[in-house]
Amino acid sequence: MPQAAPPTPRTRVRRLPARGAYDRSAIDPILDEGLVAHVGFVHDGAPFVIPMGYARDGDRILLHGSSASRLMRLLASGVEAAVAVTLLDGLVLARSAFHHSMNYRSVVVLGRTSEVRDEEAKRRALDRLVDRLVPGRAADSRPASEIELRATLVVEMPIHEASAKARSGPPVDDDEDLELPHWAGLLPARTVWGPPAAAPDLPADIEAPPYVTGYERPGRAG
Amino acid sequence: MPQAAPPTPRTRVRRLPARGAYDRSAIDPILDEGLVAHVGFVHDGAPFVIPMGYARDGDRILLHGSSASRLMRLLASGVEAAVAVTLLDGLVLARSAFHHSMNYRSVVVLGRTSEVRDEEAKRRALDRLVDRLVPGRAADSRPASEIELRATLVVEMPIHEASAKARSGPPVDDDEDLELPHWAGLLPARTVWGPPAAAPDLPADIEAPPYVTGYERPGRAG
Repeated sequence: MPQAAPPTPRTRVRRLPARGAYDRSAIDPILDEGLVAHVGFVHDGAPFVIPMGYARDGDRILLHGSSASRLMRLLASGVEAAVAVTLLDGLVLARSAFHHSMNYRSVVVLGRTSEVRDEEAKRRALDRLVDRLVPGRAADSRPASEIELRATLVVEMPIHEASAKARSGPPVDDDEDLELPHWAGLLPARTVWGPPAAAPDLPADIEAPPYVTGYERPGRAG
Repeated sequence: MPQAAPPTPRTRVRRLPARGAYDRSAIDPILDEGLVAHVGFVHDGAPFVIPMGYARDGDRILLHGSSASRLMRLLASGVEAAVAVTLLDGLVLARSAFHHSMNYRSVVVLGRTSEVRDEEAKRRALDRLVDRLVPGRAADSRPASEIELRATLVVEMPIHEASAKARSGPPVDDDEDLELPHWAGLLPARTVWGPPAAAPDLPADIEAPPYVTGYERPGRAG
């Protein structure tokens, strides 16, 4: 069982505590459904945010990138970072402009990055990154060569100081606005995958495997 | 015409210059299609990233939130920030694990935040935020009351130091991998909206307006 990550002063959701959660049962499904993390760090005193692919692997977040990337070298050197993953579920239209909102689920993880250096640990991490993108794909692609492995930096960050935040459900209007003539409700959003498009140089006799034709992100029930 | 934002040392895309762009014709469509920005800032020397709704309004990014929010008060006080918007277009499956990737379009804007204080400017900014969420909605909802206006902070950041980055197209495998038996290609992703779900307390005779039933984000041609 993943351990609960107790809220710290830094991750406690101050504004709307009803929307905040710190237990891994709320955090992990969001991290597992998402594909893009926004990674924040400080360089020369200024904030930067970069979108990156990522994977949750147990109690850590894995990131990877080119050994030639200044950003990856910075993350590999060990820095304080913030990793945010957000899933948009829909738009919330209230009668009042003020109560317009979005339904979403998000996680922010704060912590210190470190490099995964051991070769076998690095290979396992890369398999995990590929399998989080497309489950089953690591075993059905050519593994990294020695040269590719050296050209790749893998960075991990513990999921220790983390919080989830979400909004769901219909708009909440003030009582005195309920008689207004404006439509109110939800406009749901969802991500649809496919159909797959074979690479132009793919031999005609290689069909898309079930993990591609039936692709779905792990998601909420329903 | 929006002015071009020349690359600075901070925003120049170093690793893959072919993927970077600094002109507003590349930047604005991404900012206009997106709905969630990841806003990075530094607090007590540590990086934070928060997902927020936003709107592009000409040459600035608009953000808003509660006057009671510590985060919004920090942004309103004027701080260096990084605003990132990322649109995921699909997964890229190569024969080699190494060449797996994602197709995406992203923008990062770096700059200093400031508060929009003037009441009329603030009202216009809030209209813009609602209309960027749902075009046409500002005129079809109850405007903010004096109390709501005071309860809201509006923050702007100039689009001056900004860059766009994107990947598109099929996987690019090494020549010696082209004969491998693994499927290779693209798995496109798109966001689907609707059907709208009326609020439980909505009178039955109020139908969803065309800007809801026909909702689409402004997007790429095709």
